[in-house]
Amino acid sequence: MNSKPLPKSVLWQDDKLYLLDQTKLPHVEEIFCCEQIESVHEAICALRVRGAPAIGIAAAYGLVVGLTEHVSLSALRERVDYLVGARPTAVNLAWAVERVYRYAAAWAEKHDDQIPVALLCDEAKLIHSEDAASCRNIGLHGLPLITANSNWLTHCNAGALAVSELGTALAPFYTAADSGVQFHVYVDETRPLLQGARLTSFELGRAGILNTLICDNAAAHVMSLGKVDGVIVGADRIAANGDVANKIGTLGLAILCGYYDIPFYVAAPTSTIDLDTTDGKQILIEERSAHEVTTFGAAQVASLDTKVFNPAFDVTPSHLVKGIITEQGMTTAPFEQNLGLLFDVNSSTTH
Amino acid sequence: MNSKPLPKSVLWQDDKLYLLDQTKLPHVEEIFCCEQIESVHEAICALRVRGAPAIGIAAAYGLVVGLTEHVSLSALRERVDYLVGARPTAVNLAWAVERVYRYAAAWAEKHDDQIPVALLCDEAKLIHSEDAASCRNIGLHGLPLITANSNWLTHCNAGALAVSELGTALAPFYTAADSGVQFHVYVDETRPLLQGARLTSFELGRAGILNTLICDNAAAHVMSLGKVDGVIVGADRIAANGDVANKIGTLGLAILCGYYDIPFYVAAPTSTIDLDTTDGKQILIEERSAHEVTTFGAAQVASLDTKVFNPAFDVTPSHLVKGIITEQGMTTAPFEQNLGLLFDVNSSTTH
Repeated sequence: MNSKPLPKSVLWQDDKLYLLDQTKLPHVEEIFCCEQIESVHEAICALRVRGAPAIGIAAAYGLVVGLTEHVSLSALRERVDYLVGARPTAVNLAWAVERVYRYAAAWAEKHDDQIPVALLCDEAKLIHSEDAASCRNIGLHGLPLITANSNWLTHCNAGALAVSELGTALAPFYTAADSGVQFHVYVDETRPLLQGARLTSFELGRAGILNTLICDNAAAHVMSLGKVDGVIVGADRIAANGDVANKIGTLGLAILCGYYDIPFYVAAPTSTIDLDTTDGKQILIEERSAHEVTTFGAAQVASLDTKVFNPAFDVTPSHLVKGIITEQGMTTAPFEQNLGLLFDVNSSTTH
Repeated sequence: MNSKPLPKSVLWQDDKLYLLDQTKLPHVEEIFCCEQIESVHEAICALRVRGAPAIGIAAAYGLVVGLTEHVSLSALRERVDYLVGARPTAVNLAWAVERVYRYAAAWAEKHDDQIPVALLCDEAKLIHSEDAASCRNIGLHGLPLITANSNWLTHCNAGALAVSELGTALAPFYTAADSGVQFHVYVDETRPLLQGARLTSFELGRAGILNTLICDNAAAHVMSLGKVDGVIVGADRIAANGDVANKIGTLGLAILCGYYDIPFYVAAPTSTIDLDTTDGKQILIEERSAHEVTTFGAAQVASLDTKVFNPAFDVTPSHLVKGIITEQGMTTAPFEQNLGLLFDVNSSTTH
């Protein structure tokens, strides 16, 4: 058991932004300081910071990095557009920097065009602390599931490295471990980019949580041995009917859970629920490059001319989902009705 | 489309044994001549020749490699034991060399202790040609499944490289392609050793069969798109009740097929059916080293101290199997009854 604490993926300290270089994990833990916006841009492009919420938080801080005293609204607009360009499809990135920009624009309207950098920095800190609070609440709402000596399985990395503090899918595990519960987690390696092998097993191990790495295709066998009491995964988007888009491989796990009568949970903040998306059929699945599958690191696996289908996500139909754990609590079927309730009650804070 | 013919994994020509170095595929096609038994032993140890039937055939030839004119029964015994030691758990290896030895012993009893090498060589050729005939018949019995424009999915490599000529799971595809049928095959990359990415997509491509490589965990998504009409896999062992032990990941595929109502077929010679094994629960699953999962080639993926569970096989319950294609034909449920019939009718040739 390694007792070293997990380094934070994004840290704002003494008015400086520090990022953990996730491309070097788990072998090297390199934390670097971003002194200029260009290095934040590079870190996002090169996936040194990854995980939708973590990217958003890093970018929000990135807007003020290297600035002193004041910034004009037009200069801030340029910085927003520059950072969004680092990963144009990252929804959280755009959401976070636009939120800071809107805050600045509202301030400028009331005062003058020279916005105090300290105010923008406070808004970035607020985004960060809201995310952390959301993780803590997801952890608390998931905690009752993690009974003594239970065995869990997770896919990809929806943990502290991807989000802030506790992550989403991993938040119930961290909370249970903090409460002294003994349990064990199987970690899918998660091809093609191996986030499970590289990041999840690393961060769970660092927290002293017993975990065992398996190849994705071994999950059915592990379940057949009666060794999985439940599955928790994160989500990239949840449709109004409860269909869940998440890392490729999630759908297969959910079907296996159905076959073995194992509860399948999704943990995600309410902001992941998109009521404008009626069901999973409306979600476009990003296809990524063949290169991710045919090569590994410096090693060429398949022939370069191999035809590859490399979808980044899949969609799990809601009837396979036992519950969706958000910062507001556990939502169960009928999802079409119950997910909407999360917004009726809290529309002012969640939208 | 590459028109180069697929090199044979095992070739006996002009009294010499040639092996294809499968560890270098798909990048380098290196065929080497084994002039002495030591090089056959090394090739088996180092997995230069792999696939249960191919190992058996190579070892049978290996018994006579480097010999001239005659060999004594005791010298042959030493050679048998030496080759079996190269991979003690490989059932086909032991089966093949013991068959040649039994043949030699029977000859010696009738004649004298100096057995003509040419006779042993003929027995090895017989093992080889029986295997090839078995593949051809599996291909013919599977052929009606491969309808025009159908889409298939296979796992691991039960192809020409693993067996002889057409393979087992891939035999229906080769036979259909020879008959001019147009179809397409999704190839699971098959972690951890990537036999699908390295070997199956290579050999299908070489035969001009349209194929697309996917990560194992993408199979559910591909099926959800309606893009898979059927799955064919090989088998390492089939129990009397039709439970099938095969490469890890097979069970998950079979469950997905059940969910999507896609027919799941197993192709294997009758010799794979073990009537002494009543059901899959009796089959011991080999666990392999953590190293296969935590590293890839020269690249370290997970931390070296990561705990890993790496089962080599899983067991698919027979109720998920639509049909078992052997050299004798297609066998369907009730397997407990129908698999036995294969032996009642043909007990002299198959046991």
